Amino acid sequence: MAWDVEGTKRRILQAAVAEFAAHGPDGTTVDRIAKRAGVNRERVYNYYGDKSKLFSAVIRSELDKLAAAVPLVIAHTADVGEFAGGTFDYQQAHPDLARLVLWEGLSDTGSVPDEIGRTDLYAGKAAAIAAAQRAGLLDDTLDPAHLVFLVIALSSYWSAAPQIARMLSGSDVQNDDEVARRRAAVVHAAQRIAAPRTTPAI
Amino acid sequence: MAWDVEGTKRRILQAAVAEFAAHGPDGTTVDRIAKRAGVNRERVYNYYGDKSKLFSAVIRSELDKLAAAVPLVIAHTADVGEFAGGTFDYQQAHPDLARLVLWEGLSDTGSVPDEIGRTDLYAGKAAAIAAAQRAGLLDDTLDPAHLVFLVIALSSYWSAAPQIARMLSGSDVQNDDEVARRRAAVVHAAQRIAAPRTTPAI
Repeated sequence: MAWDVEGTKRRILQAAVAEFAAHGPDGTTVDRIAKRAGVNRERVYNYYGDKSKLFSAVIRSELDKLAAAVPLVIAHTADVGEFAGGTFDYQQAHPDLARLVLWEGLSDTGSVPDEIGRTDLYAGKAAAIAAAQRAGLLDDTLDPAHLVFLVIALSSYWSAAPQIARMLSGSDVQNDDEVARRRAAVVHAAQRIAAPRTTPAI
Repeated sequence: MAWDVEGTKRRILQAAVAEFAAHGPDGTTVDRIAKRAGVNRERVYNYYGDKSKLFSAVIRSELDKLAAAVPLVIAHTADVGEFAGGTFDYQQAHPDLARLVLWEGLSDTGSVPDEIGRTDLYAGKAAAIAAAQRAGLLDDTLDPAHLVFLVIALSSYWSAAPQIARMLSGSDVQNDDEVARRRAAVVHAAQRIAAPRTTPAI
């Protein structure tokens, strides 16, 4: 039987997602990831390079999945709310993603390994917002990049600071009703920030 | 000379803020904190209990300073924007605070040590928003606790995910103009979420 390279690479990546999300880049080792994936550590190095490159590959892969699952396409004003709600839903369903982004932020020193490639992803989102602003679908007071960031903030801070969300709302993510209310609040807030001023109040 | 207990406690707390912010609760030790403060470790245990209690004291102390520096008082609709802007400014000036909150979130297991006392702090903020909603100063669509959380999210996510803010805006916190634009975006967004619908568009 031929050695299943793609399957092995995928297994290593999955193990790395779990280890990095749980312990952060400083708190885990290539040995632990290799053990979890059931391969030897040399294979991890051969496929992904060192731990920092592997962490970068993990982040990129998880963010690409989010971007594919929740595209930012604005054909109607309300789509910005759907983008916010979709981002919120995705993060609730994939708690590892929020943790990976936080670990990366905590160890940020002014640039991330594949910053150019990742910047392209965000430039595409800002361009989609800019086009919708020019088309009059969205208010154009805010810089498109800032608007994208603020919508991501509304959707993502629940996972970034779950303890504050819990203390404020008196409830947590075990409570489905509360999660639905949080989602509705995110959608509503994103719409109110982004809707054109001439639109009837939403 | 009498032993300066309060001064020593304060020095331990300052050392603990710096160590915990840099390395997180798992990444530092009482020994390192004691060494940084210039005291022996027994004194740390005597004054603050174990590492987890010390971390809790650090978070509480830093959040109390934020709450004192940026009170949530809504006498006019625009005050919600000022609260957002003030929270943003405080976090820019105190980068350790955002890191402490993130470390706490990453190690959150469903409750924080002094959750009851801290919940009171947030309940006060939600009550201030609720009163402003009843007075017609703020829109009342959102639950007051959710509105507080979303405004904190708009102000705080810049520090939580600095790498995403940088990749989106093509600039970072070294650029004073960009920081001023971010602050203006936060204030604007908070106002738009919270302003009554009958208010002339802002």
